[in-house]
Amino acid sequence: MPHYKPPVDEAIFLLNDVFGLKALQALPSFVELTADLVEQILIQAAKLCEETLAPLNASGDRIGCVRHADGRVVTPPNFKTAYTAFAEGGWVGLPAPEEYGGQGLPYTLSMLVDEFASSANMALAMYPGLTQGALAALLRHGTHQQKFLYAPKLAQGRWTGTMNLTEPQCGTDLGLLTTKASPRGDGSYSITGQKIFISAGEHDLAENIIHLVLARIDGAPAGVKGISLFIVPKILTNENGELAAQNKVSCGAIEEKMGIHGNATCVMNYDGAQGFLLGEANRGLNAMFVMMNEARLGVAVQGLALSEVAYQNAVSYAKDRLQGRALTGVKNPDKNADPILVHPDVRRMLLEIRSFNEAARALAFSTAIDSDIVHHSNDPQARQAAEDRLGLLTPVMKGVFTDIGFENCVKAQQVFGGHGYIREWGMEQFVRDARISMIYEGANGIQAIDLVGRKLPRDNGRAVMAFFKDAGDVLALHRDNVLMNDYVLPTQTSLDHLQKATVWLMNNAIGNPDNAGAASYDYMHLFGRVALGVMWVRIAHAALIKKSRQPELTQVMDSKLQVGRFYMERMLPETACRLVKISSGASTMMSIPVEMF
Amino acid sequence: MPHYKPPVDEAIFLLNDVFGLKALQALPSFVELTADLVEQILIQAAKLCEETLAPLNASGDRIGCVRHADGRVVTPPNFKTAYTAFAEGGWVGLPAPEEYGGQGLPYTLSMLVDEFASSANMALAMYPGLTQGALAALLRHGTHQQKFLYAPKLAQGRWTGTMNLTEPQCGTDLGLLTTKASPRGDGSYSITGQKIFISAGEHDLAENIIHLVLARIDGAPAGVKGISLFIVPKILTNENGELAAQNKVSCGAIEEKMGIHGNATCVMNYDGAQGFLLGEANRGLNAMFVMMNEARLGVAVQGLALSEVAYQNAVSYAKDRLQGRALTGVKNPDKNADPILVHPDVRRMLLEIRSFNEAARALAFSTAIDSDIVHHSNDPQARQAAEDRLGLLTPVMKGVFTDIGFENCVKAQQVFGGHGYIREWGMEQFVRDARISMIYEGANGIQAIDLVGRKLPRDNGRAVMAFFKDAGDVLALHRDNVLMNDYVLPTQTSLDHLQKATVWLMNNAIGNPDNAGAASYDYMHLFGRVALGVMWVRIAHAALIKKSRQPELTQVMDSKLQVGRFYMERMLPETACRLVKISSGASTMMSIPVEMF
Repeated sequence: MPHYKPPVDEAIFLLNDVFGLKALQALPSFVELTADLVEQILIQAAKLCEETLAPLNASGDRIGCVRHADGRVVTPPNFKTAYTAFAEGGWVGLPAPEEYGGQGLPYTLSMLVDEFASSANMALAMYPGLTQGALAALLRHGTHQQKFLYAPKLAQGRWTGTMNLTEPQCGTDLGLLTTKASPRGDGSYSITGQKIFISAGEHDLAENIIHLVLARIDGAPAGVKGISLFIVPKILTNENGELAAQNKVSCGAIEEKMGIHGNATCVMNYDGAQGFLLGEANRGLNAMFVMMNEARLGVAVQGLALSEVAYQNAVSYAKDRLQGRALTGVKNPDKNADPILVHPDVRRMLLEIRSFNEAARALAFSTAIDSDIVHHSNDPQARQAAEDRLGLLTPVMKGVFTDIGFENCVKAQQVFGGHGYIREWGMEQFVRDARISMIYEGANGIQAIDLVGRKLPRDNGRAVMAFFKDAGDVLALHRDNVLMNDYVLPTQTSLDHLQKATVWLMNNAIGNPDNAGAASYDYMHLFGRVALGVMWVRIAHAALIKKSRQPELTQVMDSKLQVGRFYMERMLPETACRLVKISSGASTMMSIPVEMF
Repeated sequence: MPHYKPPVDEAIFLLNDVFGLKALQALPSFVELTADLVEQILIQAAKLCEETLAPLNASGDRIGCVRHADGRVVTPPNFKTAYTAFAEGGWVGLPAPEEYGGQGLPYTLSMLVDEFASSANMALAMYPGLTQGALAALLRHGTHQQKFLYAPKLAQGRWTGTMNLTEPQCGTDLGLLTTKASPRGDGSYSITGQKIFISAGEHDLAENIIHLVLARIDGAPAGVKGISLFIVPKILTNENGELAAQNKVSCGAIEEKMGIHGNATCVMNYDGAQGFLLGEANRGLNAMFVMMNEARLGVAVQGLALSEVAYQNAVSYAKDRLQGRALTGVKNPDKNADPILVHPDVRRMLLEIRSFNEAARALAFSTAIDSDIVHHSNDPQARQAAEDRLGLLTPVMKGVFTDIGFENCVKAQQVFGGHGYIREWGMEQFVRDARISMIYEGANGIQAIDLVGRKLPRDNGRAVMAFFKDAGDVLALHRDNVLMNDYVLPTQTSLDHLQKATVWLMNNAIGNPDNAGAASYDYMHLFGRVALGVMWVRIAHAALIKKSRQPELTQVMDSKLQVGRFYMERMLPETACRLVKISSGASTMMSIPVEMF
């Protein structure tokens, strides 16, 4: 069975050495935050994830969720106990305001806990993950009364949340959705329609489920401008906010799927269910986007999380498995074979994974700080800059982290040879679970289009120009430091590739939008590689300082520096190739007639 | 449920237009082969695969093989009927000599049929596939009596074959194997030991199973030089060759695994089973390599086969699924959305798959012709040259076709969005099934080491030098043809990258073998991209000629030419990046101490 140890030290290194706690302490809400407190919180979260969530991961996959004939859905054995421990520990509402039952702690911490939980048990972690998204949308768009009624229950994890967008005929193109909302005359609505692929749509973990449902009010305009967002509780509350009548919403089926069997993916039937408008009528997409952006970052973290746990297990196997001899001579003379970690190609696989993991965690961290700035800073300029970065990097992280996260699970599985294909080793589950992250919350091709078609041109390219400036500043800071050359020079080259690709898009996409579409996916990955390169520059600098101050950490920091070098030598060169592909344009692919496919 | 239509036209185009039937007719065994006969054979095979094998693929996955308490293994419903139809059609023994019950037809045809069968139902196709491998080893190394006894039954598919290498402690490193063979005094041996991961190890499809088992004769030298190969029938035969007593071999368990559930992956227990030496004592690896090389090509074809069937289904979905509008304006004004095939990023995914499939099929075809030359040519020089190419390209094809084949299944699944993750659409099965091809018959990292460490230096690099010369000749042939520029120039650039990488290896690997290990995987992929590029040059030339001769095929051939251009623009540029990675050497990855992983 696989094992998992949350990388608390890595998180603390990022906090104290790479970014500095003061980035958070500068925000009025977090002036009292201390390094000790953060460490204690992370250690507690790590303990829960390692000891309570992780042991249920394999059995959760094997047994899965079961729907009974009456529509009830039962989660795998012990999921309820583990979920309850998670909720009662206050982990669901970690970043929520204290006035709504939360802990009032930075989202930055919450994202780290999310990573630990998703590594330990992705299917289980999705229940609180979706709840956090629903809570964010509610806090942003809800009335005072709605917030008062729902937020504390969600923050405490006593109730969970879902997001209901997809219908059979309507996935990416939300304009096609047909679920109806008819006014009941009392200010509420009757919701009727079928939603599919609803994660955590029905289950036995919590007392109630708050569905956020996109629907079209009678007479609303066609397309996306006629969509509204509704709160549809599974169980309606009475005047005192107590649970009362069952609402007319039910789970019609749960999907048989490739992975995340511990999370119920439901067909949800709304048969005149009572719903309450959240935010403005016909502005539902706008409200839902709060939840979606939050969810996209959460999914990006899932990519990292599965990459991390897969890496840890592959390393253990590579140290334990004796097979063959090192090419440079016997390393393990007492045994009849060397551990496979002696083989360069095994190290290549492991380092391709790890050199992503450490930089991706840093980028997630940096983005989470931006989210905290957006929500807590008093400085409008700082908020704006952070919001720009967040908007720009969210699709990059969702697309790149989940693509690479999945590839990394496949690589880690490969380290196991034939054993990787067998259920009992658990590696194939990581691959199956990771696969969904490339698809849901907007398939990665949609992230790429969001980046190129929406985020780049917005505000005349303000966000991307700021990214270039920030990245350039980081590189300039270290340009004269010869110890930093191995990191600064390759990253500068790749940043140039990204800038060239951006100029190419400016010159070629306006006249022919297909050029944007054809370039989008490679551009997203080019962007991701550069952003991770910049993170390695920052990590490398922090590691150099740390080892000069704490010589006892020399070996740890030197290894980190080598992993960073590996990234520069083996991962970053891809940017040149992406630029060539982008510059080839759309004409070849678009010239083939439909019937010739 | 997914559909599948074998690409008979593509196969015939390769045969008649790209390579020419005369390549086969030049061999004494096949002088009478006609284009008509080949076409009839392919049409028959296609019909069987499409109508009988393919419909059982999804149910075979869902139901899987079941082992009963008495050790019997039952294959999924209707597998036996389908297998019997395949065997009775003479498809198992297609390339086997007529004197041993085969059809005496080219391996080239057999490989095409293998592709069709693996696309239709990989798990089912593995039963005859392994039989063909066992048959090849038997025909090469068996005594007259052994051939007479076993070969016709295998060729007719009445009996099936297996290969037994792996043991719990012994995978890649066969020197570690401990299964024992003790002489019984009658010329036969008692085989005792446990083998794991034995595909088709036990089942109900055939009357008997012939296990080829690696074991160590009492007193044999340690390591790989003490390994012998044995024929161990499930049921022993009497003097008349009739089935008699059950041998002491049994299936102890079947593995729960990620995919290919229709094929029983068995733990096989040999408890003093009677075995018969195949080939020379202590030369078992040598004999097994015949089977393994054959099997490696077969696995390469599985990569292509799953990529093809996944492509076909993704294309259908992309034409049917209406979602969003084309970036360049509405294409489908009668409906409320356009088919997703209008989106460049969807085309990108489809063409990345297809531009591989067509070239990979050509390379498989070309390699199959080489195999026919090796087995049937009277010209020792031609045989040697073909054997060199075969040896060089087998690891490249196994590693590259299965890596890309898997990636392509993932891409095709991605085209389906959320539906790709759901069982009923069948796409996730292709991903799970394709995954094993990267692992078995030597994990792809082992293929890379075989290529760099064994195949490159062999005979002072004769094979790779010949490859460079052949590739250079193909390019030179078309250099002055302006219509060929789009294919010749990029391929020349990438061939230069491959040559540079080869020189780098010559200069850097002898002094430090870790440099070879660290480069091997990227080198294998660089090699594969170039070999596929050369295939596209040949396909493009054939397409230009064909459209000039048959103007009614202009649209088909123009599309093919565009797919080839796509390969040149979007797939081939990767070679530059691979060269950079290769040239970075092993020092960074090897410098990290074991305990720092």
